[in-house]
Amino acid sequence: MFSFRLECSDPTSGARLGVLETSRGVVKTPLFMPVGTAGSVKATPHEFLEELDYRLILANTYHLYLRPGTAVIAESGGLHRFISWPKTILSDSGGYQVFSHRELVRIEEEGVQFRSHLDGSRHFFTPERSMEVQGILGSDIAMAFDDCTPYPVTVTEAADSMRRSMRWAERCRKVVPQGKQALFGIVQGSTFVDLRLESLEKLLPLEFDGIAVGGFSVGEPKPLMFDILEEMRDRLPVHLPRYLMGVGTPVDLVRAVGLGFDMFDCVLPTRNARNGTLFTWRGPIRIKNACYRCDPNPIDEACRCKVCQRYSRAYLRHLFVAGELSALILNTYHNLHFYKELMDCIGTSIRDGSLAGMRRRLEEAYQESGLV
Amino acid sequence: MFSFRLECSDPTSGARLGVLETSRGVVKTPLFMPVGTAGSVKATPHEFLEELDYRLILANTYHLYLRPGTAVIAESGGLHRFISWPKTILSDSGGYQVFSHRELVRIEEEGVQFRSHLDGSRHFFTPERSMEVQGILGSDIAMAFDDCTPYPVTVTEAADSMRRSMRWAERCRKVVPQGKQALFGIVQGSTFVDLRLESLEKLLPLEFDGIAVGGFSVGEPKPLMFDILEEMRDRLPVHLPRYLMGVGTPVDLVRAVGLGFDMFDCVLPTRNARNGTLFTWRGPIRIKNACYRCDPNPIDEACRCKVCQRYSRAYLRHLFVAGELSALILNTYHNLHFYKELMDCIGTSIRDGSLAGMRRRLEEAYQESGLV
Repeated sequence: MFSFRLECSDPTSGARLGVLETSRGVVKTPLFMPVGTAGSVKATPHEFLEELDYRLILANTYHLYLRPGTAVIAESGGLHRFISWPKTILSDSGGYQVFSHRELVRIEEEGVQFRSHLDGSRHFFTPERSMEVQGILGSDIAMAFDDCTPYPVTVTEAADSMRRSMRWAERCRKVVPQGKQALFGIVQGSTFVDLRLESLEKLLPLEFDGIAVGGFSVGEPKPLMFDILEEMRDRLPVHLPRYLMGVGTPVDLVRAVGLGFDMFDCVLPTRNARNGTLFTWRGPIRIKNACYRCDPNPIDEACRCKVCQRYSRAYLRHLFVAGELSALILNTYHNLHFYKELMDCIGTSIRDGSLAGMRRRLEEAYQESGLV
Repeated sequence: MFSFRLECSDPTSGARLGVLETSRGVVKTPLFMPVGTAGSVKATPHEFLEELDYRLILANTYHLYLRPGTAVIAESGGLHRFISWPKTILSDSGGYQVFSHRELVRIEEEGVQFRSHLDGSRHFFTPERSMEVQGILGSDIAMAFDDCTPYPVTVTEAADSMRRSMRWAERCRKVVPQGKQALFGIVQGSTFVDLRLESLEKLLPLEFDGIAVGGFSVGEPKPLMFDILEEMRDRLPVHLPRYLMGVGTPVDLVRAVGLGFDMFDCVLPTRNARNGTLFTWRGPIRIKNACYRCDPNPIDEACRCKVCQRYSRAYLRHLFVAGELSALILNTYHNLHFYKELMDCIGTSIRDGSLAGMRRRLEEAYQESGLV
């Protein structure tokens, strides 16, 4: 069971409010999905996700396929039961991870040979195999198996790769017809607008449950991505959820929502937390900086998360500098709270027509940080 | 403000039930104190300690003195405010940590020169300095500064060290007279009964608020420790809390309670959690073992902790093997719950006269594990 209902859209910006429903529950869009690579959002017990009202997490097929493996997950009754997370799960296809270890990979029309980054063992992934594995995971939303090109590539390489991905998308659709598991197609085509539009045209007849845009956030200049997203805006079907994969910073999210995107995932809030970069409405702070040594204030005075309610920057800095695991836990909690609040505020801003103002304030706050 | 009230004691075993009160609250004894070395119990946000109803944590003076340093803690208004833990804190004296890096140390009558294990910087700790630092921390219970001998030592070395520690205890008492900060004296004397008794005799006139026994759990055979504790039993003043430092396994705790001890601290539940050793009433389990690969059961079926309520051994094994931080968080939570429940059960057993039976069951369960 899967549905997406568009509640309203802002005619000036293109931003949308919607509701996505699976048998595991209802989530509002625009939506940020924390990344639970190996069946756990790093440094975050599930109960913290529940406290923060996250209802949809992403799981990485590639990682779970290699460890613990499909046999363990199948025997445990699927991923939800294995990890004890009863709410919605979106699984990626494994494509991105397979290709991110490109030296370990051989691509053929049939599929892709790769070596495990864990033990060097050989594996062969095809669109059919990815669908099978995602079926065993039992995710509520599966992703089509695609080839994600690095940046930069030549237009020929990008075209070849994209067209192969589109043939693979068709094969995925055959294995997972409508009404089985929800399945999203993924637009590829690197930084070439024509290829992106061609990719989209090829996906539409396959009647996916959602359209994702992949292959960004791989090192290309940001303005290039936003130009292409803008070119695509009016071609994307209105009734489908639109998922921009692997994006991004707070400013990216506001901008992409303004271009009509509904769903996002990114390791930024969790990974940055572990590096000591904490998000606030005034820009990011590096908690290890000496200026916080005796700072009695919370990370963000405007933040209502339980970390900001209880702990000072001085203490969080100390924990981080001392290498305490609590630093990673508390930092991650705060950043996930910030991303949740950010998405909630984006939703409110769409409703009351103030998204552009919110975007300007965030751009200003994040301008100097490089995190734009 | 500090008081200890003996509620009852078991005439056959010597086990005691008591209540310890500071201005930060009331705790029941026998009591286990989680170790919060750097102002944080490892992998455990304070809220988890509160959930588990721990009301007294131990902080390490040596670590906090080196990092973040007394200036930061003083400016933050003391340790309680700095770490945002409003309940009771016991600080050790720094002695144990100073001496555990023995190659970095020079002992004189005046005090001890040592180098920081962090940056090699030189420091000089005296009894007076330890008291001063613990005063800045503002712990509710301070410990006298002592020399903790390694095992084995000659009787001469042990006697010299112990007598120096006793002279130091006197100096500590001068700086912290009764009614200021609660201060416990520490019995030393290695594995020599006569020295232990001499040490105790020297401490008693100083009217400490509690008597600790230090210098065990440093590699000596367990039976030797218990023999000495038994020899000491009838000499320990009845009205003071008795704290056995750095001990121990679940079986150690039950045995030591049976010898009249009231307070304990140990890194075992937290450190073992991070090594994947989980405590249960049927003995410890090594969660990484292959036998748990598909095991749908909780760590301990009899356990009511939230980890056991939600997660399977299969999932916890996966998280541990995958190196997920969540594994450390969840394992630590379970082990701290086990230790809390263990102490609660010990209390109940004292009350209803069944401590000996509980001890036998635990000894049986832990016999094969080496954790006895």
